[in-house]
Amino acid sequence: MSMNELRQLLGQVSDLNAAEALMSWDQETQMPPAAAPVRGQQLATLAGLGHTMFTAPRLGELLDAAQPGSDADRRLVTVTRRDYERAGRLPTEFVEARTLAQSEAHHAWVAARSASDFQLFAPHLERMMDFARRTADLIGYQDHPYDALLDEYEPGMRAAEVRSVFADLRDRTLPLLRRITAAGDAADYTVLRRPFSAAAQREFSLKVAREAFGLLPDFARLDVSAHPFQINFSRNDLRITTRFDETYFPMSLFGTWHETGHAMYEHGVGAEWERTPLGRGASLGVHESQSRMFENLLARSRPFWQRYFPELAAVAPEVAQGQDAESMYRAVNRVRPDLIRVEADEVTYNFHIMLRFELELSLLEGTLQVRDLPEAWNARMQEFLGITPPDDAHGVLQDVHWSAGLIGYFPTYTLGNLLSVQLLDAARQDPAIEAEVQQAEYGLLREWLVTNVHQYGRSLTPVELTVQATGRPLSADSYVQYLEQKYTDIYRLD
Amino acid sequence: MSMNELRQLLGQVSDLNAAEALMSWDQETQMPPAAAPVRGQQLATLAGLGHTMFTAPRLGELLDAAQPGSDADRRLVTVTRRDYERAGRLPTEFVEARTLAQSEAHHAWVAARSASDFQLFAPHLERMMDFARRTADLIGYQDHPYDALLDEYEPGMRAAEVRSVFADLRDRTLPLLRRITAAGDAADYTVLRRPFSAAAQREFSLKVAREAFGLLPDFARLDVSAHPFQINFSRNDLRITTRFDETYFPMSLFGTWHETGHAMYEHGVGAEWERTPLGRGASLGVHESQSRMFENLLARSRPFWQRYFPELAAVAPEVAQGQDAESMYRAVNRVRPDLIRVEADEVTYNFHIMLRFELELSLLEGTLQVRDLPEAWNARMQEFLGITPPDDAHGVLQDVHWSAGLIGYFPTYTLGNLLSVQLLDAARQDPAIEAEVQQAEYGLLREWLVTNVHQYGRSLTPVELTVQATGRPLSADSYVQYLEQKYTDIYRLD
Repeated sequence: MSMNELRQLLGQVSDLNAAEALMSWDQETQMPPAAAPVRGQQLATLAGLGHTMFTAPRLGELLDAAQPGSDADRRLVTVTRRDYERAGRLPTEFVEARTLAQSEAHHAWVAARSASDFQLFAPHLERMMDFARRTADLIGYQDHPYDALLDEYEPGMRAAEVRSVFADLRDRTLPLLRRITAAGDAADYTVLRRPFSAAAQREFSLKVAREAFGLLPDFARLDVSAHPFQINFSRNDLRITTRFDETYFPMSLFGTWHETGHAMYEHGVGAEWERTPLGRGASLGVHESQSRMFENLLARSRPFWQRYFPELAAVAPEVAQGQDAESMYRAVNRVRPDLIRVEADEVTYNFHIMLRFELELSLLEGTLQVRDLPEAWNARMQEFLGITPPDDAHGVLQDVHWSAGLIGYFPTYTLGNLLSVQLLDAARQDPAIEAEVQQAEYGLLREWLVTNVHQYGRSLTPVELTVQATGRPLSADSYVQYLEQKYTDIYRLD
Repeated sequence: MSMNELRQLLGQVSDLNAAEALMSWDQETQMPPAAAPVRGQQLATLAGLGHTMFTAPRLGELLDAAQPGSDADRRLVTVTRRDYERAGRLPTEFVEARTLAQSEAHHAWVAARSASDFQLFAPHLERMMDFARRTADLIGYQDHPYDALLDEYEPGMRAAEVRSVFADLRDRTLPLLRRITAAGDAADYTVLRRPFSAAAQREFSLKVAREAFGLLPDFARLDVSAHPFQINFSRNDLRITTRFDETYFPMSLFGTWHETGHAMYEHGVGAEWERTPLGRGASLGVHESQSRMFENLLARSRPFWQRYFPELAAVAPEVAQGQDAESMYRAVNRVRPDLIRVEADEVTYNFHIMLRFELELSLLEGTLQVRDLPEAWNARMQEFLGITPPDDAHGVLQDVHWSAGLIGYFPTYTLGNLLSVQLLDAARQDPAIEAEVQQAEYGLLREWLVTNVHQYGRSLTPVELTVQATGRPLSADSYVQYLEQKYTDIYRLD
């Protein structure tokens, strides 16, 4: 009986979390602006009730008394207990104070970015780092306080491992980047800025999201928001968002396919995990591997453009005029060191992440002071990418994460990039999948992803999942090989 | 301190209710269809948590310990205690069982209506009537069990009063209806069926909703749903819905203005009642007075069409061709006995309500058996409107209310009609308001409504509010006079 009661209680917490998520989605996509202040209170109430319900002693009793009758029950109890113990280490007052400080820091960041003045944000970032240190102390760790933070987003991952993988990645891709930047243009990139109406971008990106990636209107919808995201309220209730720039179509196209990758992961999670803490992706890194696979490995591949260039030409003839599949393939794979992470290409992107990871470590250790952060940022940018931001808005203030207290989050982007190729390489060992991928057909690949990644939800750790699906732990090998092969060809580096 | 804690707890319940309302709105307007089953569970969880929080002993203690420091505090304690005691009389198990039965009854009703076979629905209606009787017994009443049900929707109203007002209304409007139906057409009604695109209907109805009725996008939005409704999650977060028929534009136009009346009422509720049980309209009847005032008294008035006919002609020239303000005014005021309540005009509408009220009383008293309901329905239709439904779908099965367990709800529609004219007459005593209304300008009228109706929320009872705003209790007088004057003119009955 206690398994039933456990599932019932977890279902209620899940429903409460879903309501909070719906309120967030609505806030970003539908809500009239004057509703903002009360919506903030409503969100805080739901977050507080969810935390209270999930940390209540009753849940601990149910976990202790649980007699799992199946493997699924055992995994449910194990993972839920891990979450329960972690959540219980943070007192409600601490969580509330941190939430309040995050809200203030976020507002300060918006103002500081608008004024491009880091010092307006500095005191708030100091508070965020202080909360991060206290969070790490409350959670506990063996080697490094960063481990306690990273574990929230990438269970089981340690800072030392990230450091080692990142060093390998840097050493092996920096020379490639130097060769590419020396090679000159590989296409006419002005095609990316040809006028392309929002309605036509929407039509084309949704057609591909549906045909190629399986995103059906029966369980998903696309809306517009200032910052694109994916959120879902059950595995059959997926919401993705995008933004349209009518003179730079890659933003909405690849953005939509990126979020489609996240959505299809959530859609593939096994029904037995619905309304439990296991009913979502295994980690942010694994999640990112799915979004990056669709956005980059598939939608920025040559077979994809061979198949979909004619479709693009049908929807937007002016954009396609004088172009062909090959020129479009090269244009959307432009590599260029630039200032902004979210606009970075496959080669430079990870340097943006390494920079942030190293700075987070130094800040947390106290070897770097917050006030010296812009200088440290700019020095790293020069070292990695050979450029220096003209101001803080295009440098240290560009990302929302730190203002939201998200310390330890950034590495998951690069871990996801690495995993995306490692997974796709494993899947393509199957000749039938390989043959389809060469035709930009992804039906068998999507089945492989459901079977080997999606269905498990959080019942496997990212490490377990990676080894089981690819036969080895995560490394930079596949990704480096992918980049070298692809960009040696595009930029004719031989 | 306990007033603070009381307000905090009520705020949390209000936030939970808002989340449930958002989930409902989303379900009707945005949600992908495959999400329905889980959404049902999410809604049930939020409803259950809300009920549990609102009926918890702690709220009773806070109400007992409250030391109101202001008139607002006193009203808050009084009304909340009334709600708390009423809610506490219904055991949670009873509420849950009733909710489940309602859900089953609703599905049965959908199937029965689709098959136009009342007997498919009959056993469920019997259960609904049984739940209604038990609800009345649990709540308690002095004169008639109907009073306990009606009180939920129209606090303080009794069945005997409704009976008396309705009898008066019937006696005084039935002769008018006979004279109108004998008079023949007053306009070319085919104009109402001219093609009018959904986009143009939306543009025109929103322009009027904004200019005439004050519905601004800053705090309100319009979406499409199968059945139009208004819902809100705070006074600055109003959602109205409509449906478009491109060959019958009155449906969306008057429907949108109707829901705008509901929305502007909620928008006008005083900020001091936000996130409390008093932060919404005083009753369903008072609410309906606001929606009917916009929909009928204003938007079906001659000055309105004198002002807005040219705007309609600009948006939809084909609809306006060969017409003028006067012909359009007469067309949208067609009176004709018909089968469907929601499509009824100002004269026949209330007979649809009287019929339902009388049948509800008889069912509750046991003088009418559920199985005999279609016969009783059809007999009343013949008596009041001289027509007989060809089948159950166009008769006894047309409304959703009984399937949702809403017994005692229907009378509020007619009470709202009566109150709408009584309020407008009172407002028009002010010569400045009268002068504006004659020009289809409603700024001063809207201010009057905020001052005399909206701002109080539920802090005044409907009876208090009616007497304070109009100088006398609700009666049929104003409404009857309004109908006689208006339709004597339109149908040239002199």
